[in-house]
Amino acid sequence: MFFASDNWAGAHKSIAERLLTESTGFAAAYGTGDLDRKVEARFSEIFEREVSIFFVATGTAANSLSLASVQRPGGITFCHSEAHVIEDECGAPEFFSGAARLVAVDGEAGKIDPAKLSAKIASFPEDAVHHGRASAVTITQATEIGTVYSLPEIGEIAAISRKRNLPLHMDGARFANALVALGATPAEMTWKRGVDMLSFGGTKNGCWCAEAIVFFNPDQAREMPFIRKRAAQLFSKSRFIAAQFDAYFEDGLWLDLARHSNGMADRLRAGIGTSNSARLAWPTASNEVFAVVSKSAAKIAEEKGAKFYEWPVPAATPELVSESETLIRLVTSFATTEADVDGFLKCLAA
Amino acid sequence: MFFASDNWAGAHKSIAERLLTESTGFAAAYGTGDLDRKVEARFSEIFEREVSIFFVATGTAANSLSLASVQRPGGITFCHSEAHVIEDECGAPEFFSGAARLVAVDGEAGKIDPAKLSAKIASFPEDAVHHGRASAVTITQATEIGTVYSLPEIGEIAAISRKRNLPLHMDGARFANALVALGATPAEMTWKRGVDMLSFGGTKNGCWCAEAIVFFNPDQAREMPFIRKRAAQLFSKSRFIAAQFDAYFEDGLWLDLARHSNGMADRLRAGIGTSNSARLAWPTASNEVFAVVSKSAAKIAEEKGAKFYEWPVPAATPELVSESETLIRLVTSFATTEADVDGFLKCLAA
Amino acid sequence: MFFASDNWAGAHKSIAERLLTESTGFAAAYGTGDLDRKVEARFSEIFEREVSIFFVATGTAANSLSLASVQRPGGITFCHSEAHVIEDECGAPEFFSGAARLVAVDGEAGKIDPAKLSAKIASFPEDAVHHGRASAVTITQATEIGTVYSLPEIGEIAAISRKRNLPLHMDGARFANALVALGATPAEMTWKRGVDMLSFGGTKNGCWCAEAIVFFNPDQAREMPFIRKRAAQLFSKSRFIAAQFDAYFEDGLWLDLARHSNGMADRLRAGIGTSNSARLAWPTASNEVFAVVSKSAAKIAEEKGAKFYEWPVPAATPELVSESETLIRLVTSFATTEADVDGFLKCLAA
Amino acid sequence: MFFASDNWAGAHKSIAERLLTESTGFAAAYGTGDLDRKVEARFSEIFEREVSIFFVATGTAANSLSLASVQRPGGITFCHSEAHVIEDECGAPEFFSGAARLVAVDGEAGKIDPAKLSAKIASFPEDAVHHGRASAVTITQATEIGTVYSLPEIGEIAAISRKRNLPLHMDGARFANALVALGATPAEMTWKRGVDMLSFGGTKNGCWCAEAIVFFNPDQAREMPFIRKRAAQLFSKSRFIAAQFDAYFEDGLWLDLARHSNGMADRLRAGIGTSNSARLAWPTASNEVFAVVSKSAAKIAEEKGAKFYEWPVPAATPELVSESETLIRLVTSFATTEADVDGFLKCLAA
Repeated sequence: MFFASDNWAGAHKSIAERLLTESTGFAAAYGTGDLDRKVEARFSEIFEREVSIFFVATGTAANSLSLASVQRPGGITFCHSEAHVIEDECGAPEFFSGAARLVAVDGEAGKIDPAKLSAKIASFPEDAVHHGRASAVTITQATEIGTVYSLPEIGEIAAISRKRNLPLHMDGARFANALVALGATPAEMTWKRGVDMLSFGGTKNGCWCAEAIVFFNPDQAREMPFIRKRAAQLFSKSRFIAAQFDAYFEDGLWLDLARHSNGMADRLRAGIGTSNSARLAWPTASNEVFAVVSKSAAKIAEEKGAKFYEWPVPAATPELVSESETLIRLVTSFATTEADVDGFLKCLAA
Repeated sequence: MFFASDNWAGAHKSIAERLLTESTGFAAAYGTGDLDRKVEARFSEIFEREVSIFFVATGTAANSLSLASVQRPGGITFCHSEAHVIEDECGAPEFFSGAARLVAVDGEAGKIDPAKLSAKIASFPEDAVHHGRASAVTITQATEIGTVYSLPEIGEIAAISRKRNLPLHMDGARFANALVALGATPAEMTWKRGVDMLSFGGTKNGCWCAEAIVFFNPDQAREMPFIRKRAAQLFSKSRFIAAQFDAYFEDGLWLDLARHSNGMADRLRAGIGTSNSARLAWPTASNEVFAVVSKSAAKIAEEKGAKFYEWPVPAATPELVSESETLIRLVTSFATTEADVDGFLKCLAA
Repeated sequence: MFFASDNWAGAHKSIAERLLTESTGFAAAYGTGDLDRKVEARFSEIFEREVSIFFVATGTAANSLSLASVQRPGGITFCHSEAHVIEDECGAPEFFSGAARLVAVDGEAGKIDPAKLSAKIASFPEDAVHHGRASAVTITQATEIGTVYSLPEIGEIAAISRKRNLPLHMDGARFANALVALGATPAEMTWKRGVDMLSFGGTKNGCWCAEAIVFFNPDQAREMPFIRKRAAQLFSKSRFIAAQFDAYFEDGLWLDLARHSNGMADRLRAGIGTSNSARLAWPTASNEVFAVVSKSAAKIAEEKGAKFYEWPVPAATPELVSESETLIRLVTSFATTEADVDGFLKCLAA
Repeated sequence: MFFASDNWAGAHKSIAERLLTESTGFAAAYGTGDLDRKVEARFSEIFEREVSIFFVATGTAANSLSLASVQRPGGITFCHSEAHVIEDECGAPEFFSGAARLVAVDGEAGKIDPAKLSAKIASFPEDAVHHGRASAVTITQATEIGTVYSLPEIGEIAAISRKRNLPLHMDGARFANALVALGATPAEMTWKRGVDMLSFGGTKNGCWCAEAIVFFNPDQAREMPFIRKRAAQLFSKSRFIAAQFDAYFEDGLWLDLARHSNGMADRLRAGIGTSNSARLAWPTASNEVFAVVSKSAAKIAEEKGAKFYEWPVPAATPELVSESETLIRLVTSFATTEADVDGFLKCLAA
């Protein structure tokens, strides 16, 4: 009953096995080997256009270096107020971009409110040398609170960004989970709706360590080899990342894993929706579930070995949770089983 | 016949298998799991004192963040003029340390000359606000050109550093190769001789991706959790690094691999030493061999599939290589076989 | 009728004349001359304790380097949401401090609300490696909207800061104006109430260019000579700053200038307070006055040559200003005359 | 007898007086006032083309921000091994440019050797992601050791730079001294010979504090307003710089001051050239003179109040100075008198 995070899981067997079979033989280092090339081509197929791919070590690196690649002195990146970049990356996005500032934009359901984004961008005129200037927009798909931008919602954010020539970045730490939730293609959820750069995460969905920056316009990636190397993110045995992605994409494994993970979340959502001692805090569509449970039920679950995090009650809705209750986050993964879910639901019912 | 670099090899079977067996189950993320703790304790055993360990993604990261942790505004780090930090890291050491400058010190055999180091340090008095001030010293063990500092040589550099309170860092990308070359213990080659921080490399010696920063005085590591996270180098599934180190250290595998690798280099050295068409460019002690070969022999070897890099002739010794010759670097690894070596020697003889 | 900003004024005659009389002769450069030493000693007298003084070129530099001197990787500085550091410095505070983030805290009357500060600080636990950690607090005295922290209010912010060992910085771009408004001594308004570092501004109060960083504990200033030089803020002919401060402090000129400036603002406040076509937007105590005036009155004033800025209506109080009105900021300076004020009031009355 | 540095002098009377006459009245802040515009236009006249001008506080700022404006990740700037940027700016050029590295190129007479520059640039191929890539070249005119690049020499460096599309920067801390030494026009000594950016120094030649960055192609200056503000180098009362330049340029004052200063150096050179107890260390053409004097003569001069710095003997020519001698640097300025020079020469003769 491990629902603390999808990064508590290990690696899917197919991916770990691929690392074993790939471990023999020699290959050119630093991302120049045949397998690297093959996987790069695979990304282009998946996204239905030529893309530029840069493997990096962490999701924080993918976000930070993507944003750094489009920064300007005095630049401002707009993100949701609960975004990972502003809440959980220890200032890395600013560090790698000459201290370009992140400015939070509110919005319900973990998603940037388009009208608020427009207004916020407008408050930074292009020549505002004291105030700083708009430089980029980043959205998270799926969001930090388990919701998913619809395709038109992505398009709307992109249209606002494009008006001021702001590159649009997508933090796709849980890209696959959002994709299967929408039933969209990778192309539809990104460049066809105006996304310029993507942090493509594989780690949370069954890889050991597989993160890639995807540029949909390779011209815009010209500085990236140097940005990445200067950031100490160029792997020598780069094929150990390539091998993971190779297995990840084979026969649609990545989508299967995300479907499984989302399905386990559906099972949780269904169970909690009909529970007497718990209720869904808000609707979610990916592999994250937020529930309000009685403190006693939470305690019982923990005593029975369930792992999850209590979550801060959103400041805007203090009434969500009563004195005797607590808000918890439950994250499923490729490794979550029906037994895990049912066991947890049983704890709540106890 | 892959002698281009030890990072062209894949991963040792035991290490790749460990990633497979470890891939199931759940564990706390971000380096807080049981296996992380176990491996950290193992490092302390190996180094015979309590150490602080930080896994990072690359050797460049290990070097850069080690040095960043001791930097001061206007700081200067002294390194050998052929050191990886100054030649091959795209400015990362400066980038992560607020632009602290690397200053090269010459020395024969790829090793910092102690007298020149003293003189260079002396040229940066402590209060030289315009010129900058000495902040750290870094040595590479084994060096970039295959040589190894003796224990007294390390002690001498350390003594010079200590006079000015400069922390001494060791770039141990090929730590194990140097260790077995000297027949020393890890403690003897580091803190017992005055080394304060170590970039401990496992990648070049049989891991997929396993680099660790080792602080011999845990008090000095206090800022590192934040330095590492801000640098986007904190792995979520940190146990995938821990698992590699766990296998690496088991039953002395790491030393066996280094012994094998150095042994293959010995075989190369012996063969080249008695060759008619090639000679050793300079004596080396680790898994790197530098040879002067006739251009025609080099061409034949390449045509037969041998992989190696031509190496720039040192500016100080242009006479080393005649018009009809070329200088090449040969690097062996855990995966090099006797057949590879003998095949290559046969090419030279042809 | 120049009320756009106090930095539209030139320099007070005594200060400009001092630059003329000081222009002959030779003196040691880079802040090591006799006049520099004399002025440093004068600062210590004025603040009734030994202080460390660093001249810099701009208020932005004073703020940024003060804060940089206490930063830590992943650090957070707390400031008011309308503070100059976060609104008007183009990211310089972050740039100079390794991208340490500014986090805004709300509060009425332009002043940090102590309870909100406590809560905000508490949301950054000391070991929150993902979230970042509290590193400093900065307040502005006088504030950006013309108000002034009382001595107990400063003490309260300091007490909260001290609980977490956060250095407290004061942005004193209008230090003298606040000082005479409170009738306090420099010591009382700073270190006696817990302030650790001060950006001491002379430029807005009659100097050409005279800004100093004041450290109340010289031990904490040890890195500053290097931080300043690396920031390109060490003047060669440093005595041209020293000379301005020397004249500024002579016979209490600085306090006289601030009294004059505040007095002119009083005259504005009194006139607007009894006006039919204008009213004070909120009470202020320094040399800034914020008034709600009819758009027609504002237009007339501009046509008659008055210079002032329209000011954004605070989001929290949209009702402050009706459709037919506008909010304006009026700043007085040492050079403002009674005729300027009366002329402007006459415009409003027209 | 103050020959320590030209920055030990104060300000020329005309310049200090201008600050007095300009001190009254009000003007728009942050470089947008009429006087700023007038002086900018004056620069364009002087350089015979439209230029973009940015006032900054120090020569270090002018150099650092110029170079920062053309940097790229992993970039390398080539400079002479004795250049101010690499020897005397505490790492500021690297700090402001994302840690772009300075690489020293040797050359006689304080000037970059064109052949060595070509070779050094060639050692950084455009795609060398590990090694870094060539990004800019900077020369100093007049040089740190008193010599001056001829116009063809500047053109030769520019041609080499242009081959790799490297912007060429000129550190003109002593621009006027070089100009009058060559008898060239400002245009001839800069853009007509291929210089792209200039640090135009007024401080060492009679101003209190007047440094400007000059872009000969205004298109390349587009990011500079933000780079400067983020660097805390945007003066609020910018007209105090403009006023100094206005007086500096009036009736050719700046050239007169440089002629005087160089003339005093000529007088020194002539006197030393015929001295028994001293000799010129090497030929110089600007306001710096390097002399080898007996230690006893140096001591006598100091005792009689002469101020000058002993200079390190160049490593390449240890034979320049015998045991009983010392190498000294003598710098003249607008404020140096014939009596100063003759008095000093008398000391040497004693």
